[in-house]
Amino acid sequence: MRVLLLLLLGVFCANQFVMGQQATKPVLVIHGGAGTILPQHITPEKEKAYKDALTQALQAGYAILNAGGTALEAVTAAVKLMEDSPLFNAGKGAVFTNEGRNELDAAIMDGSNLKAGAVAGITTIKNPITAALAVMQKSEHVMMTGSGADKFAAAQGCEVVSPSYFYTPERWKGLLKAKEADSLKSILDHNTPGAVLQPENRDGKYGTVGAVALDAKGNLAAATSTGGMTNKRFGRVGDAPIIGAGTYANNATCAVSCTGWGEYFIRLVMAKSISDRMEFGRQSLAKACDALVMDALPKLGGDGGLIAVDKNGNIAMPFNTAGMYRGSIKNGEISVAIFK
Amino acid sequence: MRVLLLLLLGVFCANQFVMGQQATKPVLVIHGGAGTILPQHITPEKEKAYKDALTQALQAGYAILNAGGTALEAVTAAVKLMEDSPLFNAGKGAVFTNEGRNELDAAIMDGSNLKAGAVAGITTIKNPITAALAVMQKSEHVMMTGSGADKFAAAQGCEVVSPSYFYTPERWKGLLKAKEADSLKSILDHNTPGAVLQPENRDGKYGTVGAVALDAKGNLAAATSTGGMTNKRFGRVGDAPIIGAGTYANNATCAVSCTGWGEYFIRLVMAKSISDRMEFGRQSLAKACDALVMDALPKLGGDGGLIAVDKNGNIAMPFNTAGMYRGSIKNGEISVAIFK
Repeated sequence: MRVLLLLLLGVFCANQFVMGQQATKPVLVIHGGAGTILPQHITPEKEKAYKDALTQALQAGYAILNAGGTALEAVTAAVKLMEDSPLFNAGKGAVFTNEGRNELDAAIMDGSNLKAGAVAGITTIKNPITAALAVMQKSEHVMMTGSGADKFAAAQGCEVVSPSYFYTPERWKGLLKAKEADSLKSILDHNTPGAVLQPENRDGKYGTVGAVALDAKGNLAAATSTGGMTNKRFGRVGDAPIIGAGTYANNATCAVSCTGWGEYFIRLVMAKSISDRMEFGRQSLAKACDALVMDALPKLGGDGGLIAVDKNGNIAMPFNTAGMYRGSIKNGEISVAIFK
Repeated sequence: MRVLLLLLLGVFCANQFVMGQQATKPVLVIHGGAGTILPQHITPEKEKAYKDALTQALQAGYAILNAGGTALEAVTAAVKLMEDSPLFNAGKGAVFTNEGRNELDAAIMDGSNLKAGAVAGITTIKNPITAALAVMQKSEHVMMTGSGADKFAAAQGCEVVSPSYFYTPERWKGLLKAKEADSLKSILDHNTPGAVLQPENRDGKYGTVGAVALDAKGNLAAATSTGGMTNKRFGRVGDAPIIGAGTYANNATCAVSCTGWGEYFIRLVMAKSISDRMEFGRQSLAKACDALVMDALPKLGGDGGLIAVDKNGNIAMPFNTAGMYRGSIKNGEISVAIFK
């Protein structure tokens, strides 16, 4: 009997040790937006360009994690690289509003202390995610909007650019076509199928970039950045800069970054719902994500996807659209994908 | 034995019947902000004025519920009345930003369909809650900010006023004193106790108004409106217009409207957390509210309160500040209170 007990104790301790080890292996997951992304719409060259950009963002973030950096630093670095790429609807490459401007939103959250920062409608900060980080680290606030947010970020040393920095010919064409299709409705309107099917806008439709990470100390972080919707009006804000909707991290559960039809993600308080299903409903990350993305979201009429990592390093990347630019590094292995 | 079973069944059915009846009795709960509200700081005349204003708002909302109106209509009516009163930091009576403007935020949510609307930083709509309602009912969006939100609301027929409508001498004095105390920090800074203790600012500190209701059909709704923080800068947005943070309603659980140090309410995704504890953790409304307001909130360093009603008509009005302007009608009985 005593031998059996000792044996059981041994197995228990070994398990704990393995679990402990798992939790300290860094994990990084990123996305570059979800939408009607189909193989027949993308040339092999463009597909390679997206995969290269995703790989570079993963490598940049993972290098930080591997060197003992924090999840917060890793998600910031990964998102910055995607913001700098004109391929994604965030930073350089952001879509245009109805008034022909680029208005950028971003949010970041540190799961170790539930600190968070967000900016909405900024126009002059090269990397909006650094503005969100500055709000979190250098102010008493969580969310700043408009020119006030630009001013604050600039005063904190975030790199300032002319609004024209965000201009790309492809996105400008996207705006012109969207206006042609419907000068009043935004491209997100599913009743305007012609507009949605324009190749220039397809990425922009649900264009967002995001990253979630688990670092060697078991800390989680999430970051999201977006240019919003092509042809958007009225200072519309989507889910990306809303803590709990598009972005959330909590060491007790998981880190989540969303991409999709923002209004539905706000109404579902998507990212926090996943965390709460885990914390209070004892659901697994996979089950919680599926309940939201594959059930609650389409039931309301919305679509999109998200990336998530839990405190044990489990990854989820569900989406109910045709595709989602995404990638992950776990146990040192990189994988990137676009289609289903 | 058979008699005992029949008896038990009878008791069970009677209970169900009573519960069913309870669910169809309308309930309305309102708040007018939480903060360092102490009896010695308020004259009897002022106390009476607050209680009268709360009573009028309750009566206006309850008249709608009693006539078979919806929870959504009731919370809108109650909040509108409080916005029109210069006593509360919302609509007329809003505090001033650092730049001497009144920037108003509001949100509304319909628990029957999870539809929601929010505005942030508007300056020309007399009743910000009607702007939030217009966003919900007349646009595809959930959140609009700045002048775009003003334009949209005006186009939808919301009453437009000059920004000077929101001027009140008391709030202006509050701004001047806050600037005197600290021209850089906002009044919410607890490191500026002098500023916080000014009578002109005490209400403004956590000034917000809100209402939650359960209607005869069992539908829940929540509404919140605020002028933000005295001396606020950088387009700061608090929890009031953030769906899931300051405002949330879901027929499956409860309706919640918060008031307090907004940044902490955003980080806790306060209102949705309460709903999720009920839905996934099977907690009662009272237990879920206490866990957040009396434990999680002070643990992070924040304070404030909230009002909530669940789908069975249970009411919670927890706050961890000295006082909270609040009131409720249930079973036709009005009660209003300010202090602990």
